[in-house]
Amino acid sequence: MDITLIQAESIIEKAKAKAVEIDTKMNISVVDSGANQVAFVRMDGAWLGSADIALKKAKTARFFDMPTGEIGKLSQPGGSLYNIEHSNGGLISFPGGVPIKNSGGEIIGAIGVSGSTVENDHAVAVAGSQAI
Amino acid sequence: MDITLIQAESIIEKAKAKAVEIDTKMNISVVDSGANQVAFVRMDGAWLGSADIALKKAKTARFFDMPTGEIGKLSQPGGSLYNIEHSNGGLISFPGGVPIKNSGGEIIGAIGVSGSTVENDHAVAVAGSQAI
Amino acid sequence: MDITLIQAESIIEKAKAKAVEIDTKMNISVVDSGANQVAFVRMDGAWLGSADIALKKAKTARFFDMPTGEIGKLSQPGGSLYNIEHSNGGLISFPGGVPIKNSGGEIIGAIGVSGSTVENDHAVAVAGSQAI
Amino acid sequence: MDITLIQAESIIEKAKAKAVEIDTKMNISVVDSGANQVAFVRMDGAWLGSADIALKKAKTARFFDMPTGEIGKLSQPGGSLYNIEHSNGGLISFPGGVPIKNSGGEIIGAIGVSGSTVENDHAVAVAGSQAI
Repeated sequence: MDITLIQAESIIEKAKAKAVEIDTKMNISVVDSGANQVAFVRMDGAWLGSADIALKKAKTARFFDMPTGEIGKLSQPGGSLYNIEHSNGGLISFPGGVPIKNSGGEIIGAIGVSGSTVENDHAVAVAGSQAI
Repeated sequence: MDITLIQAESIIEKAKAKAVEIDTKMNISVVDSGANQVAFVRMDGAWLGSADIALKKAKTARFFDMPTGEIGKLSQPGGSLYNIEHSNGGLISFPGGVPIKNSGGEIIGAIGVSGSTVENDHAVAVAGSQAI
Repeated sequence: MDITLIQAESIIEKAKAKAVEIDTKMNISVVDSGANQVAFVRMDGAWLGSADIALKKAKTARFFDMPTGEIGKLSQPGGSLYNIEHSNGGLISFPGGVPIKNSGGEIIGAIGVSGSTVENDHAVAVAGSQAI
Repeated sequence: MDITLIQAESIIEKAKAKAVEIDTKMNISVVDSGANQVAFVRMDGAWLGSADIALKKAKTARFFDMPTGEIGKLSQPGGSLYNIEHSNGGLISFPGGVPIKNSGGEIIGAIGVSGSTVENDHAVAVAGSQAI
């Protein structure tokens, strides 16, 4: 079971609504279960450099089936996954990427959000993920 | 003057409608005047490999402010721009990418479409570009 | 529905048997429906440079859901997809990659083979794909 | 003297058996003495992002003829090899990669494992390496 474009678009709409609610401008990416991008938007005035970060967060969340911030806790100097970010053409390991599950609890993709503080990025990603 | 996300989304909606009308499954990318992606969708069942091609077509169309197929005419063996595709991290020089102009005739971005024959890709890109 | 490792291993066994039968040394790669590698082997004495080609053939076959050689017919100078190989981090568009379908006809992955003539590469890929 | 495919396959079988024994899902890569991949498998349900990490661990172990974790001790901030991970297209310097020696003690390749904690990854890599 893979994510559909209609699901991806509803995820992005929810994420955008949350971004507006907390007065931020975000880049939002959704990938499928194969970590391939399904949909992307950059809100007007959002950071240009956050487009690639949003995609890498979505990919990272699906690559390891966990929120990106969890990886970042382990990839610090002295941590067990130090410098894991050098793999897969570049990971992003701070918050803002979360897996997306269907009603059966199966992971069907992931969302990545970038454009504000990592707390805001994460909040918008979670809001988007709850569209499913 | 740059393209807005609302404009990009209306371009994608028009392009999707055209894709459905001619019974194709497309990857559709819209970039702004800086050749940075603003919005992207992959229709259900569309080729995975066409996502990167759609983006590269949009970028190529904006990089040179002309439809991608025009560049392909010049990049053939013996042509004046032979193998220009090696630049910019990879260009796509066959049809499916077209610039997007505002009502004043100013280029504000570009659309790239991939997923069918180049004739269909171009037709969907043109349909999308006419949303503005 | 995605390919399992057991399926991928049986595909590789069949492909290896065919390679031995026709007295060739092959690199053989199998990817899943998301174009991510599931299994790979390089036979003793096979060309080192063919490992990446085998993977790129498998990816290319899944990216466009057709044998790689079909793309190569269209990507020649003057063809409608000229220089498409510059996309997706490098495509391989000569024979040796074929999609893999399940009993229901659904594409669940692809196999890529490299190490001999393209005719031999293709024959080994087809033999492998028939394990499913 | 280089590793054979039959040796690489027996290494992978041993590693898979260990992974099953400790209830983990692993990506397992074996490289030869030239640090070129000989065989690879991704177990069903294993992390997608661990495929590249498994390969990079195997390469890293052979690049420097020591377990990957040893390099990680030296690549920390302030360490003598700080950020060595930037070389060779990306190293992985946490545990899970170990050299493979023949009966004469000569290094003939390396194994890299990724998919669980680094302790588990290392245990599976060691188990695999003992097939020779």
